[in-house]
Amino acid sequence: MTGFSRFTPLVRSLPATVPFVGPEAQERATGRLFKARVGANENGFGPAPSVSARIREAAGDAWKYADPENFDLRHALAAHHGLAANQIVVGEGIDSLLGLTVRQVVVEDTPVVTSLGAYPTFNFHVAGFGGKLVTVPYRDDREDLEALAQAAWRENAAIVYLSNPDNPMGSWYVADAVKAFVEALPEDTLLVLDEAYGEMAPAGTLPPADAFVDRPNVIRMRTFSKAYGLAGMRCGYAIGHADTIISFDKVRNHFGMNILAQIAARAALEDRAYLTEVCERISASKERIASIARANGLEPLPSATNFVAIDCGCDGTFATAVLKQLGERGVFVRMPGIAPQNRCIRVSAAPDAEIDIFEETLPAALAAASEH
Amino acid sequence: MTGFSRFTPLVRSLPATVPFVGPEAQERATGRLFKARVGANENGFGPAPSVSARIREAAGDAWKYADPENFDLRHALAAHHGLAANQIVVGEGIDSLLGLTVRQVVVEDTPVVTSLGAYPTFNFHVAGFGGKLVTVPYRDDREDLEALAQAAWRENAAIVYLSNPDNPMGSWYVADAVKAFVEALPEDTLLVLDEAYGEMAPAGTLPPADAFVDRPNVIRMRTFSKAYGLAGMRCGYAIGHADTIISFDKVRNHFGMNILAQIAARAALEDRAYLTEVCERISASKERIASIARANGLEPLPSATNFVAIDCGCDGTFATAVLKQLGERGVFVRMPGIAPQNRCIRVSAAPDAEIDIFEETLPAALAAASEH
Repeated sequence: MTGFSRFTPLVRSLPATVPFVGPEAQERATGRLFKARVGANENGFGPAPSVSARIREAAGDAWKYADPENFDLRHALAAHHGLAANQIVVGEGIDSLLGLTVRQVVVEDTPVVTSLGAYPTFNFHVAGFGGKLVTVPYRDDREDLEALAQAAWRENAAIVYLSNPDNPMGSWYVADAVKAFVEALPEDTLLVLDEAYGEMAPAGTLPPADAFVDRPNVIRMRTFSKAYGLAGMRCGYAIGHADTIISFDKVRNHFGMNILAQIAARAALEDRAYLTEVCERISASKERIASIARANGLEPLPSATNFVAIDCGCDGTFATAVLKQLGERGVFVRMPGIAPQNRCIRVSAAPDAEIDIFEETLPAALAAASEH
Repeated sequence: MTGFSRFTPLVRSLPATVPFVGPEAQERATGRLFKARVGANENGFGPAPSVSARIREAAGDAWKYADPENFDLRHALAAHHGLAANQIVVGEGIDSLLGLTVRQVVVEDTPVVTSLGAYPTFNFHVAGFGGKLVTVPYRDDREDLEALAQAAWRENAAIVYLSNPDNPMGSWYVADAVKAFVEALPEDTLLVLDEAYGEMAPAGTLPPADAFVDRPNVIRMRTFSKAYGLAGMRCGYAIGHADTIISFDKVRNHFGMNILAQIAARAALEDRAYLTEVCERISASKERIASIARANGLEPLPSATNFVAIDCGCDGTFATAVLKQLGERGVFVRMPGIAPQNRCIRVSAAPDAEIDIFEETLPAALAAASEH
C-alpha cells in the first residue's frame, strides 16, 4: 500500500522509521506509566516560575497568530548575545531549523558528514531530502574533529554536523578547538554547530556568540528546550551570517511559531537568576547520578550537558538489557545507538524524586540484566 | 549577498517575499497599535473558557516534549469524526501540513493547479519546492470547479488546491458539488481540500468526514485556528486515506507539536457547547459587518466563513485605498490580491468592541479613499 500515486520517488523510498519513539508510546505499549522520566534530556526542574506565570497570563492570547517575524524574540536574543537581529532566525525547535537547513542545501546524493551515532533527527532530515550521509566514528567518546574535517574535504561535503557539547555522550571541546575546526573546514562546507546543551557547559566551551557571524558557512543552533526547561514549547534559534540567515525566510513556515512559545522564550531569557540556579541544580543532579553509577560499579562519563552517559562496563547487548530492565521498573532512559558508545545508558538530570527512583531501581535492573 | 555558497539553485532562485505581512510589522512601521484586529480571520471571541483554563493548568507541562505521535489528539479527532486514527495526521497548523504535502509531491516543474488569488501560503510552498503553478480565475467570486478540473487534466497536475469555504471571498460549494469535483479529477491528481473554515459553514457544505478516505488522492485540511479560536497555538490536521496519511511520518517534524497546543486542541474538541455558541456569535458579527457595509453604500458578499468580503464598488486601487485609510485609523483588515476580487476588503468577525471601531472608522476611511 503506497498511498497517493505521485508521491516522489524519494519519498516512496524513505523508510517508515522515526528518529525517536516517545516515552508515551512505550507507556501505551506496556500499559504502565513511567515513574521517572529521565530519558529525553528534558529539564524536569522546569522553566522559571516567572516563565510559567507568563505562560498562564498569556493564555488569553491563544487566539492570535504569533508575529511571523518573531521580532521581539529575535531582538531580545540579539541584545542578549550582542548580535544583530538579522543574524538570528527563530524556529519550532532545533529539529525544525535542522530540517530547513538541510532543505536549503541537500538534494539527492549531496554528501553530508556527521559522526556515527550522533543526533538521529539530523540524519532523518538528510535522508528526507535524499542526501548521502557519510559518518565518522567517535574517538574516545568524543566526536572526532580531525576526522570530521578530513571527511568534509574528502567527500566534498555540503554540510558537516557537530554537536558541542555532544549528545549522546556528554563530551565537549573547548572553544579554541571549535574555532580551529571551523578554520579547518572548506569554505563551501556548511558547519551546523548544534549547541543545544551550551548553557550548561563549562565556561570556555562556547565560542563567543559573534565568533563566526562573518562566515556564511557556519550556523549555530540554540534552544529553549534544555537549560531553559521549555522542550514542550518548541522554540529554538539559529545564529549565523546575516546573508545565510535571511535565506531561511524563503522556506520557513512564517506562521509556525506558537505565540505562547514566543512569550515564554522572552520571559526565560530575562530570568538570568533562574538560569544560574537551574544549571546548579542540574550540575548537582549529574553528580548524584554519577555517584549512583559508581555505587553500582559503573563508570559515569564526564558531561557538559544535562545528562550523564553511564558506561555499563560491557557491550551494547548488556546496556540494552539494563535499559529494558529499568524501563520495566518504571524508569525511562535512552542510550547511544552505535558501538562502542552503546555500552552506555544515558540518564538525564532531574529532580531528586526521580533520581531517587533511578537509585532504587538500578541495582535490581543490573542484576536482572546480568542474569540474561 | 547570497549567504552560504552551496544553497541549492532552487533556493537561490526563490524571492525574498513572504506569504503575509503580520499586523505587528505594520504596527512597528507606523509606530501605532491597531485598535481593531479584524484582518487575519482570527477568532477574537477566543477559545472556550474551558480551553483557556486547560492551557493555564497545563503550563507546568511545558518542560516535556509532546507525544510525537499526537496519539491522544488523533484518537480524539478520530472519535469525533467517526474515523480511524490512522486516517489523521496532526501538524503545526494547516500551513505546515500544506508544506509537507507539497514536499511529498512536488519537484522542479511539477504542475500544480490553484485558483488565481487563492491562499498565498500554498503558492509559497509550491514555489519553495520548485513547482509550476497554474492558476484558474475565480468565476462569480467562487473558485471555478469546472475550470479547476479541466486544468488538472490539461496540465497533468500533481496537486489541485481547493478551499471550501473559500478564503478570501467567503463563497462556498455544497457537499454534492465537492463530491462531483472529486469524481471529475484524475486519480493521479491530489486534491488538497482546505476546509479551515468548515465548522462555520452552513449545514450541507462539508461532505461527511469519511466521504473520501477510500481515495488516496484526497487530503482534507482542518484547523483549530478559526472556529476553535486557537490560531496562536498552531494546531491543524489532515484527513485522508490511511496509506496517504502514513507517508507524512516520513517527512514531518515528529517533535514539532507544542504540548499546550495538543492539550488545548483536545479540550476545544470536547467543548461542543462553546463551539455552537461561538459560531452563533460569529454569525451575528458577520451580519453586523454586512449591515455596516450596506449602511455605507457597499455590498457585503455572502460568507460561509468567519469573515465578510465587502465589495467597495470600484476597483483594486480604490479598495487598497480604503484598506490603507482603515489602517491609518487603527483598523487592521486585509483584501484579496487579484482583480476583480480585489474590489473587496475582507473583515473578520470579532467582538462588538472591535466592530464598533470598524463602524466608526469606515465612513471617514471611505471618504478619504474617495478623495484620492
